[in-house]
Amino acid sequence: MKIIIIGATGTLGKHVTKALEKEHEVIKAGSKSGDIKLDITSPASIENFFKQAGSFDALVSTTGNGHFGPLNTMKDADFRIGIDSKLMGQINLVLIGQHYINPKGSFTLTSGILSEDPIVLGANLSAINGAIEAFVRSAAIELDNEVRINVVSPGVVEESPDFFPYFQGHIPVGMERVTQAYVKSVLGAQTGKVFKVY
Amino acid sequence: MKIIIIGATGTLGKHVTKALEKEHEVIKAGSKSGDIKLDITSPASIENFFKQAGSFDALVSTTGNGHFGPLNTMKDADFRIGIDSKLMGQINLVLIGQHYINPKGSFTLTSGILSEDPIVLGANLSAINGAIEAFVRSAAIELDNEVRINVVSPGVVEESPDFFPYFQGHIPVGMERVTQAYVKSVLGAQTGKVFKVY
Repeated sequence: MKIIIIGATGTLGKHVTKALEKEHEVIKAGSKSGDIKLDITSPASIENFFKQAGSFDALVSTTGNGHFGPLNTMKDADFRIGIDSKLMGQINLVLIGQHYINPKGSFTLTSGILSEDPIVLGANLSAINGAIEAFVRSAAIELDNEVRINVVSPGVVEESPDFFPYFQGHIPVGMERVTQAYVKSVLGAQTGKVFKVY
Repeated sequence: MKIIIIGATGTLGKHVTKALEKEHEVIKAGSKSGDIKLDITSPASIENFFKQAGSFDALVSTTGNGHFGPLNTMKDADFRIGIDSKLMGQINLVLIGQHYINPKGSFTLTSGILSEDPIVLGANLSAINGAIEAFVRSAAIELDNEVRINVVSPGVVEESPDFFPYFQGHIPVGMERVTQAYVKSVLGAQTGKVFKVY
């Protein structure tokens, strides 16, 4: 299986890469490193990326930024950081990637616990995560050629201790559990699912 | 109580206006008609609107467009229609309006059933509705001065028969049920809630 991992050197992506590259051809992609570079905030860059990568069987996205800050000073431009990166970046990977993916292939995106369990400073990421999860439920009933799509929604992960002060009362999630949710999406057969890991 | 209704002459807005204007001061707003006009896709227009409207006790938004069309031809520009209108329009009403609303005031936004019960052609609206619902859960824990925020999520409504062919198997929802969900949000005391009407 030929698997593209966007964000392959990130906190989540490096574990997913390690788990999948033993038995599969993995193309590592990212904004700063990887076999092929791309800027997910640019549809032209995404299109160019797929032209270079060629047809594939699975795409895993563990990438995308959001704005983290107080609601009472939040502006349209702050909110658009998450819209342009984590939301439209991942959605454009699907809208464009659907024309390059092989039949019975799969897309696996990343949301996060804030879609249903909010924290102070997290309004932008809550909205983005909620959007991605609803998009996946809807895209799953329209994708052609038996292509599947799921999303992994991790809680705060044990390898991101800088976030712990903002996630009071949250139990950090082990990397192996999160990694296996991506593996389940790619190598399993479900579609339209939010795999919650928290 | 001074209540602003954005989209006051629309399918939902006209009923909400009728229900609330008996006992409250209602300021009707919209893109084409109303006491004050505004373009919700423009933060500058929203800011100017609130300067004209002055302080208020409740804002109800029953407005915002999305893109309705097949996933396999959907482009970034299509998806941005819903992002700029129904999503960022309503979110900017809150981000800007929080600086004009009176203590203990409330915001009531509008999402829709597609956030959790998708239909073919509805991927953009599913994502937008999911984003709004997650934003409301998060904003509710940060708004200052005991300001509340909720969202009404209607199913397809009985006064929109043009949509019925796209909502096969959905039971159209009566206008009175939908209207009363907005009334509950404005005149009740809950916050951070998705009031589902379907």
